[in-house]
Amino acid sequence: MGRKYVYLFEEGNASMRDLLGGKGAGLAEMTNLGLPVPPGFTITTEACNEYSATGRFPDGLEEQIRDALKVLEEKTGKTFGGLENPLLVSVRSGAKVSMPGMMDTVLNLGLNDRTVRALSGVTGDERFALDCYRRFIQMFGDIVLHVDFNGFESILEKHKKQHRARYDHELKPEHLKEIIKEYKNLIREKVREEFPQDPFEQLNRAVRAVFESWNNPRAQVYRKVNRIPDDLGTAVNVQTMVFGNMGDNSGTGVAFTRDPATGESTLYGEYLVNAQGEDVVAGIRTPHPIARLQEEMPGAYEQFQKTCSLLEKHYRDMQDIEFTIEKGKLYILQTRSAKRTAAAAVKVAVDMVKEGLISKEEAVMRVEPAQLNQVLHKRLDPRAEIRVIATGLPASPGAACGAVVFDADEAERRGNEGEKVILVRLETTPDDIHGVVAAQGVLTSRGGMTSHAAVVARGMGKPCVCGCEALSIDYREKRMTVGDLVIGEGDLITIDGSTGKVIMGAVPLISPELGEELRLLLRWADEIRKLGVLANADTPDDARRARDFGAEGIGLCRTEHMFMSQDRLPIVQRMILARSAEERGEALAKLLPVQQEDFYGILKAMDGLPVIIRLLDPPLHEFLPKVEELAVEVNTLKLSGGASEEIAAKEELLKKARSLQEFNPMLGHRGCRLAVTTPEIYAMQVRAIVQAAVQLKKEGYNPVAEIMIPLVMSPKELEIMRGLCMEVIRQVEEETGVRLEIPIGTMIELPRACLLADEIGKHADFFSFGTNDLTQTTFGFSRDDAEGKFIPQYIEKKILPDNPFAVLDRDGVGKLVKMGVELGRGANPKLVVGICGEHGGDPDSIEFCHLAGLDYVSCSPFRVPVARLAAAQAQVKNPRSAKRKK
Amino acid sequence: MGRKYVYLFEEGNASMRDLLGGKGAGLAEMTNLGLPVPPGFTITTEACNEYSATGRFPDGLEEQIRDALKVLEEKTGKTFGGLENPLLVSVRSGAKVSMPGMMDTVLNLGLNDRTVRALSGVTGDERFALDCYRRFIQMFGDIVLHVDFNGFESILEKHKKQHRARYDHELKPEHLKEIIKEYKNLIREKVREEFPQDPFEQLNRAVRAVFESWNNPRAQVYRKVNRIPDDLGTAVNVQTMVFGNMGDNSGTGVAFTRDPATGESTLYGEYLVNAQGEDVVAGIRTPHPIARLQEEMPGAYEQFQKTCSLLEKHYRDMQDIEFTIEKGKLYILQTRSAKRTAAAAVKVAVDMVKEGLISKEEAVMRVEPAQLNQVLHKRLDPRAEIRVIATGLPASPGAACGAVVFDADEAERRGNEGEKVILVRLETTPDDIHGVVAAQGVLTSRGGMTSHAAVVARGMGKPCVCGCEALSIDYREKRMTVGDLVIGEGDLITIDGSTGKVIMGAVPLISPELGEELRLLLRWADEIRKLGVLANADTPDDARRARDFGAEGIGLCRTEHMFMSQDRLPIVQRMILARSAEERGEALAKLLPVQQEDFYGILKAMDGLPVIIRLLDPPLHEFLPKVEELAVEVNTLKLSGGASEEIAAKEELLKKARSLQEFNPMLGHRGCRLAVTTPEIYAMQVRAIVQAAVQLKKEGYNPVAEIMIPLVMSPKELEIMRGLCMEVIRQVEEETGVRLEIPIGTMIELPRACLLADEIGKHADFFSFGTNDLTQTTFGFSRDDAEGKFIPQYIEKKILPDNPFAVLDRDGVGKLVKMGVELGRGANPKLVVGICGEHGGDPDSIEFCHLAGLDYVSCSPFRVPVARLAAAQAQVKNPRSAKRKK
Repeated sequence: MGRKYVYLFEEGNASMRDLLGGKGAGLAEMTNLGLPVPPGFTITTEACNEYSATGRFPDGLEEQIRDALKVLEEKTGKTFGGLENPLLVSVRSGAKVSMPGMMDTVLNLGLNDRTVRALSGVTGDERFALDCYRRFIQMFGDIVLHVDFNGFESILEKHKKQHRARYDHELKPEHLKEIIKEYKNLIREKVREEFPQDPFEQLNRAVRAVFESWNNPRAQVYRKVNRIPDDLGTAVNVQTMVFGNMGDNSGTGVAFTRDPATGESTLYGEYLVNAQGEDVVAGIRTPHPIARLQEEMPGAYEQFQKTCSLLEKHYRDMQDIEFTIEKGKLYILQTRSAKRTAAAAVKVAVDMVKEGLISKEEAVMRVEPAQLNQVLHKRLDPRAEIRVIATGLPASPGAACGAVVFDADEAERRGNEGEKVILVRLETTPDDIHGVVAAQGVLTSRGGMTSHAAVVARGMGKPCVCGCEALSIDYREKRMTVGDLVIGEGDLITIDGSTGKVIMGAVPLISPELGEELRLLLRWADEIRKLGVLANADTPDDARRARDFGAEGIGLCRTEHMFMSQDRLPIVQRMILARSAEERGEALAKLLPVQQEDFYGILKAMDGLPVIIRLLDPPLHEFLPKVEELAVEVNTLKLSGGASEEIAAKEELLKKARSLQEFNPMLGHRGCRLAVTTPEIYAMQVRAIVQAAVQLKKEGYNPVAEIMIPLVMSPKELEIMRGLCMEVIRQVEEETGVRLEIPIGTMIELPRACLLADEIGKHADFFSFGTNDLTQTTFGFSRDDAEGKFIPQYIEKKILPDNPFAVLDRDGVGKLVKMGVELGRGANPKLVVGICGEHGGDPDSIEFCHLAGLDYVSCSPFRVPVARLAAAQAQVKNPRSAKRKK
Repeated sequence: MGRKYVYLFEEGNASMRDLLGGKGAGLAEMTNLGLPVPPGFTITTEACNEYSATGRFPDGLEEQIRDALKVLEEKTGKTFGGLENPLLVSVRSGAKVSMPGMMDTVLNLGLNDRTVRALSGVTGDERFALDCYRRFIQMFGDIVLHVDFNGFESILEKHKKQHRARYDHELKPEHLKEIIKEYKNLIREKVREEFPQDPFEQLNRAVRAVFESWNNPRAQVYRKVNRIPDDLGTAVNVQTMVFGNMGDNSGTGVAFTRDPATGESTLYGEYLVNAQGEDVVAGIRTPHPIARLQEEMPGAYEQFQKTCSLLEKHYRDMQDIEFTIEKGKLYILQTRSAKRTAAAAVKVAVDMVKEGLISKEEAVMRVEPAQLNQVLHKRLDPRAEIRVIATGLPASPGAACGAVVFDADEAERRGNEGEKVILVRLETTPDDIHGVVAAQGVLTSRGGMTSHAAVVARGMGKPCVCGCEALSIDYREKRMTVGDLVIGEGDLITIDGSTGKVIMGAVPLISPELGEELRLLLRWADEIRKLGVLANADTPDDARRARDFGAEGIGLCRTEHMFMSQDRLPIVQRMILARSAEERGEALAKLLPVQQEDFYGILKAMDGLPVIIRLLDPPLHEFLPKVEELAVEVNTLKLSGGASEEIAAKEELLKKARSLQEFNPMLGHRGCRLAVTTPEIYAMQVRAIVQAAVQLKKEGYNPVAEIMIPLVMSPKELEIMRGLCMEVIRQVEEETGVRLEIPIGTMIELPRACLLADEIGKHADFFSFGTNDLTQTTFGFSRDDAEGKFIPQYIEKKILPDNPFAVLDRDGVGKLVKMGVELGRGANPKLVVGICGEHGGDPDSIEFCHLAGLDYVSCSPFRVPVARLAAAQAQVKNPRSAKRKK
């Protein structure tokens, strides 16, 4: 007895997603719940994987399919290929993880020149039968025979035009016969074979095509973007056809049990009368809202509503349900956990806890942390004057502005160059996915709230306005018109996916705030998580925002930005160019009060919470003009006979810039190395910190300053730095009579610091892993050079699973971090350990930090909610006992 | 009972160096051997260390000194401070490790206005007594009271001039009395105290001064250069004075039991008649060769010769012996293991094995590997026409050329800027040591073979010509004259320390060969060592040299130099600038035959031995002109109205150079990353290697090519590279019908490669640790930026013990190397593991490689003998069982 590759729906259940795919498991579960599911069976993902490996059906599969078909025939009383009452089936892909629209589907399979006549006879509707056949040939031709879809479409359009039919169903049987003939000719011409008439051959080839669609380019891109493993394979669902296109008491639709944009607990969806399922998703006709079904087909509506409620309770989650009504009878074709905006995810999760459906832990697990960025949508600045040129459907919330582009490739090209673009299309298809990825937002003139563009944009958290029919889009001329207004490629527009507005020009956007439900969810997350969440912030404004977003302190306050501001740069340059200790001292004395003011502001904003201030990190030449520019300036002055003093001054500057220039600035004279050679800079900064803290303390505040030394690679280095800091602290204490507790810690951002963390830990109150630099040194590539030049190819060739600057590399960098934590704590059990690289805001990396036993993560203010949630999820997935917090 | 701080000579022995210092232990040993050592005692290093810590004598020290003095008084029948027969003593430093001339000595202590008269009475020689007193005041004034030495010297010079005395001993008693008076005045004026008359006070203060001299600046520099720990402290030897300045039957000298320059087994040294010890070492008078003593004082000579022979046998090593003859009676004042040139060290070691005095293992341990560089001295090219302007003593072998400089500071300044300089001095003193370090060689117009300059230069293996009296040196005018010839600062000269020649201009120098004795010693080393020794070589010439020096193969053959040669660079640039795969292919096709020729030559030179060829490593922009230069050129062309095509072409090049420019080239698009994005370059190189090997095989040779992939950081990367290589190898095998075994391995030069060495090891036949890059990434500093800018300060501040690019950092980099070895071998037991960074030629790092269980080291050809010796020493010190060799 061979392996079982085929499961009747009644043989499966919801837990068999791996084997049957999401759709197959759902159909099985619903069948067993007694819901009106058309009979069918599922071919397993194992069969797909064996096919992918060998290029042929595994032994026994064909027989098992035939056996299952026999069961369908018995159940339906129809016969596959039969000339009296022919059994037609749909063949659909269904992977473990939903990949909407990414893989192929064939409907109406089983039709041929003879069964089409039988179908016509049984239904008494020739037009319907021929329409089904026409559709089947088109889909089979496209998907199985790889004849270009547009070839069929242009034949169809030609006939529609010729017969003045606006919609497909207005075509008469004689027109459809013509079309079918021309379709067959097209196939003969293109692939030099006849359209296959044997239903079994049709089925085998369709199954094969679905297997193969697992590896089509758009599915590969989708998997890459959504980080779905390549080796899952897809299942294939073969199901008895029911027809939404059997007249005005038929229809097909998609609905969500709650609003996928807002999470509102109300049935939300669309349907089309007299249409097949693909028509809704493709967005070719603009469908009706689901509420209208209540008027049009009240019985079916009521039954559907009950089914929705049942399924939501059964799955304890919001569902996305496909249905068809055939001559008034409701069929459920699919149910799955519904994709939703982050806002909806948050509201649904919070509501379901309130409804007693799920626990707080489950609620916390229901929201993808990465998705949370969406909730924190940018909005139009309400004070801005705006010129609304059109309004479409508010398909995915948030506002975005950018240059108009009309195709996905261009969007990708410009996007990769860092330009902000809005992808504008009649409608999007799965082939446009790379363009959506690269765009700030999407605007379409056709399609509804469940059209491809809307679903994909919501999934990615990008603003989207759909079905904006006032727009007339001309791909060839690369322009769109609204009334008299012509907008060309590259013109700036703004879209507001929350209201559907399309606005001329770039509107100022403002930053988001947390909503009530999200605050509640995050409070639950805070109760659960063991990791502290701090923020990286350099200004009082950022600090306040971070605090509002729930940051428990500042984990990284950089001081170099303070050196960069235009009013200070000349003083900083004077310090660098100083020829004597006195000159340098004078410049530093001028910087002291302004730095003190900086620290005063941040410490005040974070009153009572820790603020970890990192002393100057970048190499000094960053504060001087570039050598190349200076060289050209000097050259110009000389050639144009400039004044000799001016030339001399520039040459002096060039000389200094050259002497400070570094071959590899990342690996140069920076971080605490600056203070080993020129301790005065750090001494000034420490004094500014301590004086600011003293000032606040005197004013009745509770400043909690901590000092962090960057780029340490040896215990002795930190020992010296600690001594330097302690000396200044003691001096200021003596001068002011105020006593302060100022912990002193270090960045751990070099492999050697991890390797010697035991020795270094003896001189540190805390470690903060700087995983940006640690990634650069561990991999031996600089972010600036690698991200543009070769990391994309490395990901494509699967040498790297991710960009290691976005997602912490557990194999390499993670190993060093773990070593650092263990050695450091071993030598100093009181050591507080955190991370302040950009990874601190990445959910996967946060999970790693949780597992590695870190005390806290620190990330950019906007990432704080993400981090709070991700930290809680890490705890739910891998409970850890001790709550060690910064 | 307190700690014992004072040991009479008869209480100690040779094993007590830690406590008594080298000199003290030697005096004790000799005393117990019954040799004629003037009685004395040693104050321990512990006393010095306690003094350094507290600033005062430890309890009981003063009493113990007084007790020991009493013993001396009994032995000599003299009384300390006595007015009949006064006991005079010398007070000398003596650390565990010899630091010649670095610390202070006071002679004739015990003299005062009254005892000087007693001495005069006892000896019947007033001039002698007064000369002793004069010397004592001068030394005490200089060393204990810190009155500038030159003040005394100018008084002395004034009187010598006034009384037309050429040498000190020509001064009459009345002159000396005048001098003494003026000396005392000088002291009173400078330090506002009277010259102390109490002998006990003199002694206590002298001991204190010697203690303090341990931390004087020149001693610190010496310890740093010679890597002597700072916490050893010095012992102090107080010894009954004997006088070499008691007339023509007295004298003092220094001799080696063998020739310290050549190792020849013949007594070698110098003496001065009627002089005190300091006169010989300071090089003020040019002394007589020791052989002449046989004529002048045959009895003393014979006794001395016997003593030398005895001491050499006793210590089983060549000795450096100080002696004084007082009125015909020989006294031995010191013996120590003699410093020697590497050539001498080699010859002495080999001879002593032949003489049955030591074993082969001991012989191997007798030569400092670092010193071996010396034996491999450069020589004057015998074909060069040279203009000898003077000849001095051949004080330290080898030839050097450079710009003349007349003071040590200038030598250091220019040397640090990379200029080659020859330090020219009347004579050198310990204060010049930093200048000697920075210079290529040393030339003095005064002093003999054992003068300071000669000893120090030999120790450092630098060429030195001494006592070149034909030179007239004028420090003030910064010039020297020989007859009519005037040589100014910065003029180029060449010195030959093997012949004593001083030559005008820069003479071409030629590379050394191994001598017979060294070859023998290295053969013994080969028998002992377990580490393989390979060489880094890129050309057939280098390969041949490496082979001659005993390399067992090429561990690193870089291919980028082949790209850099002037005839190939244009083709390489064409490849880089190629706009299509075809254009690139054409350029690569042109490079293929030349690369093949390169590999053919090296594989032929190393016939039968492995040649590990590393594929292209540097980023491509290294082959283009610099952006700054191009920018200025474009600017110039534009401003000067250049032809528009020319401007366009340059701008094109500038654009490309800019697009390839990297922020951190070290961390950029280089190594195998080039081949991930542009595999054709590596494919061409592999083809060139394989075709060269096939060609040689057909000609009857036995080429052993291996391919090494640089900069690997992930297993997948190496897997892809291995696939690429294997494909080309198989292609060429098919094309030619010749089968080849070509191992494929990888550099391990990034922390991540060490961390993932288990996974990487599965795809590698060998690992070669690239410790240059590994040091850069582990420390996070780039060699180019760090070595000039902050590493010196890091060493000074003791944050780093050494430059980690010269000596492998065991704490950090070493930990990663060990991890890499263990993980790699764990996953692939057949894995061959070596090192090819510059550390492969550093003895300390070689010891680490031995301990870490590596199979081989690879270093530059000239370092191969060093590595062979160091590897053997590592095995003698830490025997390892398995002999795993490349």
